[in-house]
Amino acid sequence: MSSLLVDNIGELVTNVPAAGGDGPLGLRRGVALLVEAGRVVWIGPARYAPAADRRIDAEGGAVLPGFVDSHAHLVFAGDRAAEFAARMAGEPYTGGGIRTTVGATRAASDDDLRDTVHRLRDEAMRQGTTTMEIKSGYGLTVVDEARSLRIAAEVTAETTFLGAHVVPAEYAGRPDDYVGLVCGPMLTAAAPYARWVDVFCERGAFDADHARAILTVGQSAGLGLRLHANQLGPGPGVRLGVELGAASVDHCTHLSDADVNALADSATADGSTAGDGSTSGDRQAGTVATLLPGAEFSTRSPYPDARRLLDAGVTVALATDCNPGSSYTSSMPFCVALAVREMRMTPAEAVWAATAGGARALRRTDVGVLRPGVRADLMILDAPSHLHLAYRPGVPLVRQVLHNGVPQCRL
Amino acid sequence: MSSLLVDNIGELVTNVPAAGGDGPLGLRRGVALLVEAGRVVWIGPARYAPAADRRIDAEGGAVLPGFVDSHAHLVFAGDRAAEFAARMAGEPYTGGGIRTTVGATRAASDDDLRDTVHRLRDEAMRQGTTTMEIKSGYGLTVVDEARSLRIAAEVTAETTFLGAHVVPAEYAGRPDDYVGLVCGPMLTAAAPYARWVDVFCERGAFDADHARAILTVGQSAGLGLRLHANQLGPGPGVRLGVELGAASVDHCTHLSDADVNALADSATADGSTAGDGSTSGDRQAGTVATLLPGAEFSTRSPYPDARRLLDAGVTVALATDCNPGSSYTSSMPFCVALAVREMRMTPAEAVWAATAGGARALRRTDVGVLRPGVRADLMILDAPSHLHLAYRPGVPLVRQVLHNGVPQCRL
Ligand SMILES: [Zn+2]
Ligand SMILES: [Zn+2]
Repeated sequence: MSSLLVDNIGELVTNVPAAGGDGPLGLRRGVALLVEAGRVVWIGPARYAPAADRRIDAEGGAVLPGFVDSHAHLVFAGDRAAEFAARMAGEPYTGGGIRTTVGATRAASDDDLRDTVHRLRDEAMRQGTTTMEIKSGYGLTVVDEARSLRIAAEVTAETTFLGAHVVPAEYAGRPDDYVGLVCGPMLTAAAPYARWVDVFCERGAFDADHARAILTVGQSAGLGLRLHANQLGPGPGVRLGVELGAASVDHCTHLSDADVNALADSATADGSTAGDGSTSGDRQAGTVATLLPGAEFSTRSPYPDARRLLDAGVTVALATDCNPGSSYTSSMPFCVALAVREMRMTPAEAVWAATAGGARALRRTDVGVLRPGVRADLMILDAPSHLHLAYRPGVPLVRQVLHNGVPQCRL
Repeated sequence: MSSLLVDNIGELVTNVPAAGGDGPLGLRRGVALLVEAGRVVWIGPARYAPAADRRIDAEGGAVLPGFVDSHAHLVFAGDRAAEFAARMAGEPYTGGGIRTTVGATRAASDDDLRDTVHRLRDEAMRQGTTTMEIKSGYGLTVVDEARSLRIAAEVTAETTFLGAHVVPAEYAGRPDDYVGLVCGPMLTAAAPYARWVDVFCERGAFDADHARAILTVGQSAGLGLRLHANQLGPGPGVRLGVELGAASVDHCTHLSDADVNALADSATADGSTAGDGSTSGDRQAGTVATLLPGAEFSTRSPYPDARRLLDAGVTVALATDCNPGSSYTSSMPFCVALAVREMRMTPAEAVWAATAGGARALRRTDVGVLRPGVRADLMILDAPSHLHLAYRPGVPLVRQVLHNGVPQCRL
């Protein structure tokens, strides 16, 4: 197995403050990084770098852990550009357009769905995303949910069964019957391809009883829990997620004090401290608040109050929510820039949330950080500092990506 | 001279409604486009396409005129990432940081400045910008303004003398003396390399008398007029620009009814109608309102009221204001997305403003549109429609760029 040395690094974001780096990002300068067999095997002063078979010159660019996008809906057909344009002209977002995509997805061939998943996955990779969660949820039949997850599993280990995305038209007025299908044959067919189960718990989608039933039976089937919660209005989702030990509750736009306290208590119980990455490692049992500012951007909605969450000690992640309806961006750099501009996260908090935070939301310890032993998933920027991800909004700054130690872009 | 055919176009944005295209963007489908000698020589139904030496398959992607970025400050040294982070943490933007960049720019070698200009110009080109205005304004000595423009002129014909960017520290308390220098030896040294003259007319920078003096003498030296106006507060800039026949007044964040009326009257006198591109062509003597939403994004300021301007019949352009202080983005797609989300422009209005609108702001008729005879400056998107520039924010959607008919990116 050949070795690869990354040197001439302007700034290394490790997300490992305990190992001698500066601040919550564990920034190190003057260091090089050695990769072997798809893993980081050494980080140290560049002048002591071991010999390696190959070398990547970072040309003074910042090197960061690859982005961990813990919330994306990539298995679909069609687009909703016209719906987007109408919404920008004043029509409200209600989530009802999901059914449009369901129709197109059911009608699509496996290869059509596969092409879209691969295209968006590659697009995200070019923008620095090395771990990407992918949900089902546009099939909503036993067969279509299973094939959605089978196709997603071709490109990621982080697959999520979201049969409870919306009640499909053929079950209109019979949500209990649909939940029965989701908890029964649909879960059975989906589970072999899924790591997680998720529910869109929102007025107009699934209520707390439905969500509890689905998550509980999913957990019995060996799946981890996550939840779409409190996006369009206040609701029971966040507290339900914490109660059931979900890895993440996502959106968190409309929160009560009780919601924030529940999240903060889960983080404290877990040993995490305010999203600074200084937890001791294994016991990542708290519930992360995953914020999806691309959805607020593309639905022209108020943003979640990230400062309230961070100041309360909640662990915060950022993700794209990439989907054809409410947030058709695959760009984690764009989400970082929005988090700083619109949610008043510091650039360091936003970068942490988009890397280590996403890893927490997926309960992964082998990604989102750079230290010996983790997967060699990293990006090299055309910029000297992580600050530039927010300072240079919209600019494609990712010059190179290593995924499992393999360079993905032009060298 | 070899010929190049672009075909398999999903949607062609011509910005020429009169020639049979749909809507203000003059959309055409089922057409191909032929390039010879750096010009568009033919657009017509794909089945009648002439034979060509080479072919580019647009793979169903939208084809648009290259972006015309009519406002950028690329000749500088250093960066101000730390100032940006402090501002995001709550410090207000006053424009005072310009002096930091002036110090770094004066200390930089020609080659350092040249590297930055070329790097940013290339970065913009990869994002679809085929015409880019570049201003001086970080030299502020006779020698440094002249060399800034000389270097800018290496990459663009649209060079702008902005000696009146800020009163430099060595003239503190003596603005009249500095304006004398700008109007005298500095203009003499700069004019051979400049097409335009510009003034930062704002409280704390230059007042209306100063601006009038500089613009008037610049005009006598053969330069066209443009103005930074009404960015940080209300002021006389916009009306002064219209009065003097400036091609564009830029920022326009704080406008009175009189300002809007003056702009609208200039557009009407010109024969333009509400930025819909249906002017008859030559008499582009009106004053364009150029909006720079990247600056509001990166200074967390309220956005200009684009709808008020459009509804009044003002011709609106979009540009990046790319500079290391208040808007370090080179991304016209990002500006289009912001214009739709934050300024309630329709996607079509935003795309028009970023292409044909920018051309109006530079009084160019050979770019910003696609019809036989114009420069073959165009981009091919990884998306079927111009809508995706706003629908897919942050995503690098530009797959290929032709500049003077020459492909710039991977083929
Ligand atoms: Zn979602
Ligand atoms: Zn400017």
